[in-house]
Amino acid sequence: MAEAREPMQDIAHLGHTEILTPRRDESLWFFKEVLGMEEADRQDRSVYLRAFGDFDHNTLKLTEAKSAGLGHIGWRTVSSQALDRRAQALEESGSGKGWIDGDVGHGPAYQFEDPDGHLMEVYYQAEKYRPAEGERSALKNQPQRYPVWGVGVRRLDHINVLSQKVGRDREFMEEYLGFKLRENVVLDDGTEAGAWISVTPLAHDIAYTVDATNSNGRLHHVAYWADTREEVLRAADIFLENGIYIETGPSKHAITQGFFLYVYEPGGNRIEVFSGGYLILTPDFEPVTWTQEERAKGQAWGLQLPETFHTYGTPVVDPDAETKDVPVFDSS
Amino acid sequence: MAEAREPMQDIAHLGHTEILTPRRDESLWFFKEVLGMEEADRQDRSVYLRAFGDFDHNTLKLTEAKSAGLGHIGWRTVSSQALDRRAQALEESGSGKGWIDGDVGHGPAYQFEDPDGHLMEVYYQAEKYRPAEGERSALKNQPQRYPVWGVGVRRLDHINVLSQKVGRDREFMEEYLGFKLRENVVLDDGTEAGAWISVTPLAHDIAYTVDATNSNGRLHHVAYWADTREEVLRAADIFLENGIYIETGPSKHAITQGFFLYVYEPGGNRIEVFSGGYLILTPDFEPVTWTQEERAKGQAWGLQLPETFHTYGTPVVDPDAETKDVPVFDSS
Amino acid sequence: MAEAREPMQDIAHLGHTEILTPRRDESLWFFKEVLGMEEADRQDRSVYLRAFGDFDHNTLKLTEAKSAGLGHIGWRTVSSQALDRRAQALEESGSGKGWIDGDVGHGPAYQFEDPDGHLMEVYYQAEKYRPAEGERSALKNQPQRYPVWGVGVRRLDHINVLSQKVGRDREFMEEYLGFKLRENVVLDDGTEAGAWISVTPLAHDIAYTVDATNSNGRLHHVAYWADTREEVLRAADIFLENGIYIETGPSKHAITQGFFLYVYEPGGNRIEVFSGGYLILTPDFEPVTWTQEERAKGQAWGLQLPETFHTYGTPVVDPDAETKDVPVFDSS
Amino acid sequence: MAEAREPMQDIAHLGHTEILTPRRDESLWFFKEVLGMEEADRQDRSVYLRAFGDFDHNTLKLTEAKSAGLGHIGWRTVSSQALDRRAQALEESGSGKGWIDGDVGHGPAYQFEDPDGHLMEVYYQAEKYRPAEGERSALKNQPQRYPVWGVGVRRLDHINVLSQKVGRDREFMEEYLGFKLRENVVLDDGTEAGAWISVTPLAHDIAYTVDATNSNGRLHHVAYWADTREEVLRAADIFLENGIYIETGPSKHAITQGFFLYVYEPGGNRIEVFSGGYLILTPDFEPVTWTQEERAKGQAWGLQLPETFHTYGTPVVDPDAETKDVPVFDSS
Repeated sequence: MAEAREPMQDIAHLGHTEILTPRRDESLWFFKEVLGMEEADRQDRSVYLRAFGDFDHNTLKLTEAKSAGLGHIGWRTVSSQALDRRAQALEESGSGKGWIDGDVGHGPAYQFEDPDGHLMEVYYQAEKYRPAEGERSALKNQPQRYPVWGVGVRRLDHINVLSQKVGRDREFMEEYLGFKLRENVVLDDGTEAGAWISVTPLAHDIAYTVDATNSNGRLHHVAYWADTREEVLRAADIFLENGIYIETGPSKHAITQGFFLYVYEPGGNRIEVFSGGYLILTPDFEPVTWTQEERAKGQAWGLQLPETFHTYGTPVVDPDAETKDVPVFDSS
Repeated sequence: MAEAREPMQDIAHLGHTEILTPRRDESLWFFKEVLGMEEADRQDRSVYLRAFGDFDHNTLKLTEAKSAGLGHIGWRTVSSQALDRRAQALEESGSGKGWIDGDVGHGPAYQFEDPDGHLMEVYYQAEKYRPAEGERSALKNQPQRYPVWGVGVRRLDHINVLSQKVGRDREFMEEYLGFKLRENVVLDDGTEAGAWISVTPLAHDIAYTVDATNSNGRLHHVAYWADTREEVLRAADIFLENGIYIETGPSKHAITQGFFLYVYEPGGNRIEVFSGGYLILTPDFEPVTWTQEERAKGQAWGLQLPETFHTYGTPVVDPDAETKDVPVFDSS
Repeated sequence: MAEAREPMQDIAHLGHTEILTPRRDESLWFFKEVLGMEEADRQDRSVYLRAFGDFDHNTLKLTEAKSAGLGHIGWRTVSSQALDRRAQALEESGSGKGWIDGDVGHGPAYQFEDPDGHLMEVYYQAEKYRPAEGERSALKNQPQRYPVWGVGVRRLDHINVLSQKVGRDREFMEEYLGFKLRENVVLDDGTEAGAWISVTPLAHDIAYTVDATNSNGRLHHVAYWADTREEVLRAADIFLENGIYIETGPSKHAITQGFFLYVYEPGGNRIEVFSGGYLILTPDFEPVTWTQEERAKGQAWGLQLPETFHTYGTPVVDPDAETKDVPVFDSS
Repeated sequence: MAEAREPMQDIAHLGHTEILTPRRDESLWFFKEVLGMEEADRQDRSVYLRAFGDFDHNTLKLTEAKSAGLGHIGWRTVSSQALDRRAQALEESGSGKGWIDGDVGHGPAYQFEDPDGHLMEVYYQAEKYRPAEGERSALKNQPQRYPVWGVGVRRLDHINVLSQKVGRDREFMEEYLGFKLRENVVLDDGTEAGAWISVTPLAHDIAYTVDATNSNGRLHHVAYWADTREEVLRAADIFLENGIYIETGPSKHAITQGFFLYVYEPGGNRIEVFSGGYLILTPDFEPVTWTQEERAKGQAWGLQLPETFHTYGTPVVDPDAETKDVPVFDSS
């Protein structure tokens, strides 16, 4: 065991995501008034948002676009040196796209694509959120005051993207960014249908799940953390009262043990309010592989997810996903 | 910023603690029947215990002794190489006590003392818990089945020790083990009265708080994690019904935002059932310093902790701590 | 309004239920070890059970029988005079079956059948539970100590029975026992498919729902109250770990707003762990009628109940209910 | 037992309270923006408010006045006939003050004073709340949509008033209004220091506790119900962030087992956010009497209430209550 390679620890955490929306005003209303996030800035076609417990300036870039979908995913490194190491490795991998100067809230970033085509970037310099007087929390260790309205999510938690080849993408993330496999699903024919991976003690910072439509580069969902399961239950009432389409939940996942609630924001992207789960502090965690038969049992308490959970993503490419059960979004 | 030293990431997490009890049978009853932990093994005067979500063989060594108090604290490293690096640095620090072969559940460990005299060790090799058939969880990603009795704590969370000089000990832990300061209390006279530090994203893996009796090497409390605040509330009912002395809580700390409940196990050691708090995934967290005036406001919702919280520790050395309000333990 | 008839207030609450089980030992294990109820007494083929917050000696009579199903339902009156009034009215209704001397825990009862054939009784004299020393709660206002094991349900809440003609049975309960309609479902063809009625401020002490198999006298479920939604979530984990079949939930009903979790006890009867809901203290509550279209939307957060929820009852009469999705019970 | 007098069941529930505030705008902000209640109407110096689950038009009349304190307490009867019976009995008791035409939201009321001088009224006719389009809930059985801001209390729960002679007032309420004693505190000298009484299954619709200042007619607190303990915990964070003075809690009372949180609204009146507790459906509940020694143990989990809890009431008459620990209100 002493001869094992030491773990790479260059990526600190999921820093931000950018999602695209064909209905910016309605999407903004959802994130601000319903989820309880705050607008941090606006530039051109984008609005930058944050949750009250996010330490950085913003964690969500909401950009107006013709279709819903993923803009990009930002991974923050633990240091400048780590950033340089990752940029060089990505450059050599052939997946690199080069440096950008930065964006609202963060400095230089090296952009690249995972094999499935999801745009990502690594960066280190980030602007800490400095609350204006009225936004200061009574608790000195909280970046921003707890909101008195909406769901009141605390922080960005994870992202889930669809992929044509889950195993391929998982290995890419392991090799070039130091992700560790936590849990995955392997079908009877050997196909890896889903992989939950992380650089942090969270059971997943990102998950790859197979794209049933065989498209590439699509988004499954972005998840924000709520402090308690009770807040997730309360979120369901808030979504209900505000006409937000609840796809499934609240209930408990078998994989990651997360307590989930999935909705479609008005722009069409799937958003999760997430709590619970378990932490992986142990350095030699043994990944958990679920078989096809085990997955057929449904979620932790037996709930079967709706068909759309396995077919719907953004941008919407499956015409069948826009029918009966799902509210039609103007996302083309 | 690019020139900053890269963070040391050698310590993975708090692996186990050993606590001493003059009443082993009553203490065992508390940990097993009331907290819902499981006995993993027995050797000589010690019983090894685990919570259902602990990945390793055991996280608590309960040892019969003349007085209550701390046995030792075990820190697990991220790799063998990291263990070697830490052992060498500690050896050079002059605080080292040398290698031991290991103990039930883990391999070779290098022992040392922090400046206040708390015995600690670093180790890498650890035995994973392998559930017997009847102990297997229906959830494949859970080390052991959720218990149907007791509080049902999930995992070891943190430890809090008393110290004559908090600042001195904090700096030792930062320099030799890579701990990062998360929050501290600095009195008007400049004394550091408490320091919450961690190597993980938890707001503290260990806290040092000033020993009002000017003793050294004492234990304040060991904390086990409960998944929800509601489970902490339920724990209070269970403690009440089982005659366990509740010192304070459940309520919410200002520091770490943890949701706490403190009791004295029958051997006299203070035990916390803990939930909530916040995660520090950001790599450049700015430590939060609380002033004397800010601390005078009490906990998050204004609760004032009882005097014993600041004076009582194990072993018990302050005769005043054994009077009126506190149940007397036979701990001398 | 002044001329309106004054409300009948003769029935106090649901006092107890008797359920039949072909597997007494396994059923007993379920109620005692898994639900956390206590055995109060045994007589012949019956075991009498209670939850920790039930004020009377017992609220559940579990009787060994060839098939699962309902034994009888006991309604307690507010006074002896009220009992006499109800007995006389029931006698005159033609549904009466006469007086019995009583049973373990209660005195003389007048028995009758609702039009669908469910055996019921009204009684007033009841034995208060007197805890043995070890069963006394630390809280003087709690009949029995909170259990340290199992789900820990507090008290009997309500019963739901299947009926060939819901409207007919509802009217019978209104006229002879003073029940008030709280909520119901009326299909497009005018059929009353379900009725939730009560004499207490609970939204239902009993519900009648239409029997899809056109049988009569069947049981849908008996519900015990858990103090919090979190305890219902915890119950789901306990059921999961103990191999209890979870039919659906936890989730929130639209009707009654109850937070539900349905399982089949090993004898085959459906049992609900219930929390939440709303109280009806107002004396002129306006019943809420749900249309077929409204019900098609599913439960509060959109969950669709499984088909078995509408077909499975005890005794099991529908052979299709014993197939694929449902664990087969030896109930014939 | 058969000869016992039948229970009086004329009073249905606590219908509304009127509280006085010297700072109407700040009080209004508290009830609307912080507690999440809605303004139902305004007339002269009064604003009428409601919680989302209150069935009637309003449950709180907030009236501008020179000092904080109680305006009056409204008890709704089960029928017109019951109102006539109560009015006649009160008239004969000598405590009656006569009929008024009604107020916003209710019809004719008979006014009277309890022996301590708290103004009360009984009435039957009440206006049901009819939501405007935007206020309609997605749940047909909920009077009003769940608010997306503030604490989100569901309904008026109970009131607590101070009294020079608790026993005297309790007996008055029992004799003339049919209240039943649920719990009380009897000191070693035989004084009844507190009495929790109800006409509903709630453990108290009103409590009388002894006025340490020997004043009369004062208010201790008005309590609104939150659906879960978690919502009470969340309320504490909301109060903290909005500068509302938290006097004590959240914690669990021994008496009534209620989960409490007490704050002072900006006008100076104490307001409770309340959840939990237990229901008394049994018709022959045996009142629970707590001794002086038992009360000295503090609340359920050992918390000692602050001195102000026993001395502070509105209007403020004890100059000592306006010192150090309590924010000074301009209530004279």
